[in-house]
Amino acid sequence: MLLDIQSLHQLGKNVFLSLGASEYVSTCVTDALVLAELDGIPSHGFSRIPFYADQALSGKVAVKAQARVSTPAPTVVRVDAAHNYAFPAITMGLEHAIPLCRKYGTTLLGVTHSHHCGVAGHFVERIAREGFIALSFANTPAAIAPWNGHKASFGTNPLAFACPRQPHPLVIDMSLSTIARGKIMLAKQKGESIPEGWALDVEGKATTDPARALQGTMLPVGGAKGATLALMVEILSATLNGANCAFEASSLFDAEGAAPNIAQSFILLDPAHLNPNFPEHLEKLCAHILGQKGTRLPGERRIQLREKNRARGIEIADTLYAELLQRAHK
Amino acid sequence: MLLDIQSLHQLGKNVFLSLGASEYVSTCVTDALVLAELDGIPSHGFSRIPFYADQALSGKVAVKAQARVSTPAPTVVRVDAAHNYAFPAITMGLEHAIPLCRKYGTTLLGVTHSHHCGVAGHFVERIAREGFIALSFANTPAAIAPWNGHKASFGTNPLAFACPRQPHPLVIDMSLSTIARGKIMLAKQKGESIPEGWALDVEGKATTDPARALQGTMLPVGGAKGATLALMVEILSATLNGANCAFEASSLFDAEGAAPNIAQSFILLDPAHLNPNFPEHLEKLCAHILGQKGTRLPGERRIQLREKNRARGIEIADTLYAELLQRAHK
Repeated sequence: MLLDIQSLHQLGKNVFLSLGASEYVSTCVTDALVLAELDGIPSHGFSRIPFYADQALSGKVAVKAQARVSTPAPTVVRVDAAHNYAFPAITMGLEHAIPLCRKYGTTLLGVTHSHHCGVAGHFVERIAREGFIALSFANTPAAIAPWNGHKASFGTNPLAFACPRQPHPLVIDMSLSTIARGKIMLAKQKGESIPEGWALDVEGKATTDPARALQGTMLPVGGAKGATLALMVEILSATLNGANCAFEASSLFDAEGAAPNIAQSFILLDPAHLNPNFPEHLEKLCAHILGQKGTRLPGERRIQLREKNRARGIEIADTLYAELLQRAHK
Repeated sequence: MLLDIQSLHQLGKNVFLSLGASEYVSTCVTDALVLAELDGIPSHGFSRIPFYADQALSGKVAVKAQARVSTPAPTVVRVDAAHNYAFPAITMGLEHAIPLCRKYGTTLLGVTHSHHCGVAGHFVERIAREGFIALSFANTPAAIAPWNGHKASFGTNPLAFACPRQPHPLVIDMSLSTIARGKIMLAKQKGESIPEGWALDVEGKATTDPARALQGTMLPVGGAKGATLALMVEILSATLNGANCAFEASSLFDAEGAAPNIAQSFILLDPAHLNPNFPEHLEKLCAHILGQKGTRLPGERRIQLREKNRARGIEIADTLYAELLQRAHK
């Protein structure tokens, strides 16, 4: 089923409204999922709605809870997402953090008692459109072992970065596992084996069996250095915000158990104070990269897809469409 | 030659004083090099002094220039290192940045017209001992190509992180190349070949010849993701501070050409505002990691060596010792 963006948005929003979420919460969540679809990341788009909705029904997501924003220091914004969805909590937090960064030059935004933040690159992109450099750190339920360890301890823990650039920010967004967990799930569904180097089994041994891989751990990108970066992201998200560690967090893919209580942190930096010629210096660097055959800048592909998909509309699987229609009219 | 720490420090300091560096500059540079030796990182220790000193003699390092500190925004500190050594510039910057972070909760320190920052982990460790989380980003002369590219464009660009912990901060310090450039230099000296996966030749092809590797590019850790992180660090150091890009910077290993004009940035975050129980939450995470056989925390080995070496003294090669003595008494 091919839907234009407005119809897609209305469909998603209706599902969340029917669950008792506020207009603001329903809009923020749907905005984020539509943008993931536009950018060609369906794993973080409307396919998540059944999980998100079931979690609201079971109480794992507190869909009617009100997030609270505070400013415990002049350049620190804290959001208690109150176990509701992450998107409205982060959006509220940014509304406070952006003016503070404009005034002081730097700001830290921390979001605790949070849920899945979707495409981390979208928030840093939004900050970069305000003229600031942004870094974000998020933990997710446990997937990666410490180096030489065997227990899933850190999430795939996305690290994202963006800086202002015309006509669109330069955006970096990467998880710290070698490949996305969704690829292992897909291999399992198809009954295929996975390449060595993707995952370990519960005993910490290499495996090509996706079922054993899903019970075990995912290999970090770049070996020991990637596992260390996953630890860094874990500290900058979970520990900094007093949320659950990845190994304590419940799944984002079922409606069982307590709220995941994961966390996200954002650092905002105004580049104008250190280098008024930041745009020109960035173009010099970009030109040097793009002058080499075969290269591209990170995030370019998403923006190109976004513009194409906005005009063309988004294809939603018929079964998912039927399910969302039914959920929207409950 | 085994030297006690005081004698080692005096020897190093005398070399820089004899070059006309101030007491402050000589002390800061020597402090950093001694600490590298203590931590078992001789590649960033006294073996650098002949290069640093020759660069002062040729004017590539402006050994008598005075670094200037300014505060262009309430939480932004800028240091113009004036092409003198990096260590005194960063030290001066931190003296301003630390009280600002205590007051506002976050601070950004940028150092431009800078030189080699040595062991990046040492600065973030120093910040963490003040009770703050620290991130640092530094560019170095070009070594790594953009993904699918073939020109050395980014430095090995160390990324460092530290957070407060008792009795010592937890410190992460990694370059973004698969291995240190020094290992390739060593293989060349010994006439040995290097494993595939370390480096590419000037045409972007895999090579096991260390000479061809040194003319070519070093492979980033974790493939495309590592190259992208190297770009991120390049933007957060060179572009943010208006310094030279890695591909414009002159070598740190000869006395030829203009000043390298590289850059370093530091982000300081006070964790107490978001999570007053940060120490307890960090211990829970550390216990989970250390409960797995074979694991250790990043930075632990350096601290252990430091304490051992402080008692035992530092072994300096006889030829280097003789050279430093001669340079100190010029």
